Amino acid sequence: MKILITGGAGFIGSHLCDELIVKNHFVTVIDNLILGSLNNIKHLLDNPNFTFYEEDILKSSSLELIFKNHNFDMVYHLAANSDIQKGSNDPDVDYSLTFKTTYNILMCMKKYNVNKLFFSSTSAIYGESTDLLHENYGPLIPVSNYGASKLASEAFISAFSSTYKIKTWIARFPNVVGERFTHGVIYDFVKRLRENSNELVVLGNGEQIKPYLYVKDLVDGIIYICNNSNEMFNIYNLGVDSRTKVKEIARMVIEEMDLKAKITYAGGDRGWVGDVPEFQYDLRKINSLGWSASRTSNEAVNIAIKRALNK
Amino acid sequence: MKILITGGAGFIGSHLCDELIVKNHFVTVIDNLILGSLNNIKHLLDNPNFTFYEEDILKSSSLELIFKNHNFDMVYHLAANSDIQKGSNDPDVDYSLTFKTTYNILMCMKKYNVNKLFFSSTSAIYGESTDLLHENYGPLIPVSNYGASKLASEAFISAFSSTYKIKTWIARFPNVVGERFTHGVIYDFVKRLRENSNELVVLGNGEQIKPYLYVKDLVDGIIYICNNSNEMFNIYNLGVDSRTKVKEIARMVIEEMDLKAKITYAGGDRGWVGDVPEFQYDLRKINSLGWSASRTSNEAVNIAIKRALNK
Repeated sequence: MKILITGGAGFIGSHLCDELIVKNHFVTVIDNLILGSLNNIKHLLDNPNFTFYEEDILKSSSLELIFKNHNFDMVYHLAANSDIQKGSNDPDVDYSLTFKTTYNILMCMKKYNVNKLFFSSTSAIYGESTDLLHENYGPLIPVSNYGASKLASEAFISAFSSTYKIKTWIARFPNVVGERFTHGVIYDFVKRLRENSNELVVLGNGEQIKPYLYVKDLVDGIIYICNNSNEMFNIYNLGVDSRTKVKEIARMVIEEMDLKAKITYAGGDRGWVGDVPEFQYDLRKINSLGWSASRTSNEAVNIAIKRALNK
Repeated sequence: MKILITGGAGFIGSHLCDELIVKNHFVTVIDNLILGSLNNIKHLLDNPNFTFYEEDILKSSSLELIFKNHNFDMVYHLAANSDIQKGSNDPDVDYSLTFKTTYNILMCMKKYNVNKLFFSSTSAIYGESTDLLHENYGPLIPVSNYGASKLASEAFISAFSSTYKIKTWIARFPNVVGERFTHGVIYDFVKRLRENSNELVVLGNGEQIKPYLYVKDLVDGIIYICNNSNEMFNIYNLGVDSRTKVKEIARMVIEEMDLKAKITYAGGDRGWVGDVPEFQYDLRKINSLGWSASRTSNEAVNIAIKRALNK
């Protein structure tokens, strides 16, 4: 297939490129390299099946030209802001980078008759709940502009899928960690401990608990869903059953760095405004399809810590 | 209270103005008069508690100036495209008029510290389902760009409510009919019968069945919810238990016009792409709050037909 991956030079997008190139697809990437990096895809640049555009999806005319020239069979739309905290400080960040990018992609798909779409959604659309979150859960009350922008994206994707006959797979991601990641709690802890090896200040009370999925499991899951789920509009929670507490991550990072740092807590039940202190997926739908993650949340965190330390 | 009503010169907005003026509030209206009409509010223009701006919410600088000058206590945000069919032909209509207007209002509320919001949502966010639709229903899979834009609006409202502490009431409207309405099935039938009094062509098979709420019941419900529901974020289906079939409406219009027109059906299960052939609300939440509509769906349709005929 001729595939477009938006945000393909990013943390998750670049792993997806690797897998789809291995499976002999023709892969085109659009990435503005603001969050993504050429480093993530440099090993692909000479591959004749791989094309890279340093371009911004918000520039409609440039985007249209790429669609016009390539005749894509399918789009994997991953481009988005990935820093929830930043988006809570300035709503325009997620409005533009997480939502408007999706709308522009949909308008191009409509215009150039591309009728297959994968979309990277998020647990953040559910908002704050300690319930087991299944795909039909409601109400959807996101507490971050990031979650709002992903839900707004899902809404337009749903209408476009129905109105303009676009076959769609949506996977709602949990926290994802592993090679090439650039931010998040593990990354922050390593950075802070490098600045001060005696003390690690943890935002919140350390009790925040979430599932961390290894990025290679995530990419495996994405491809599995697209190959095996055949409704016109497919939604899946993509995750791992186990979870890891933030205080455990702090302990694991200190141990892996071979330090004796003291852990202190900034207090409160969450890291920042827009953060969700805990969530847990109901994964029966994707398990029934025949897929489950190969690594636990703790194993994923452990791999990620080693990678963050270049081990 | 100092209240801003967006779309206040429109069908529903103008009725809300009437009620809030009667209750001695200071009411400011922003309306670009593209869908709304001065006729709907001309009786209010001399009232010292009423201020009207012919202005477009998409012009951020003009909108900001109004917020800056008025120090509003609360916003009733009703401005939107109201023609679902038009929005399915051109996604930019609902993207701009139904969604971007909401985002602009939210940004002004954040900037000028307005911390109470009523939002007019819609049954169209649920998508196509024959289930009884309660407020926690999922998944939300809108089939029209109008429904997508309202869901996208709800998503951002949810995030802003949580992040910037805006107390919010959302009512999801069904079909609404009555004085000052400008489009919809009743209006279309009257228009077609005036063009050809011998035959009425009904889009779809006539079996489409929906609840029609009388506009004065709707406005009564809006005010009731805002006065009686006190969570930080309140969502209600606002409707009527009974429903009316499109083929019944056709018969009622012909009878009221005293004609003998033959009814023929264009076929298919719906009127147009983006139409939902049937839906029914679970109204237990609003009923428990102590509110229910005073008129049945058929009574509302009947009043609306008379008004459409200037009876």
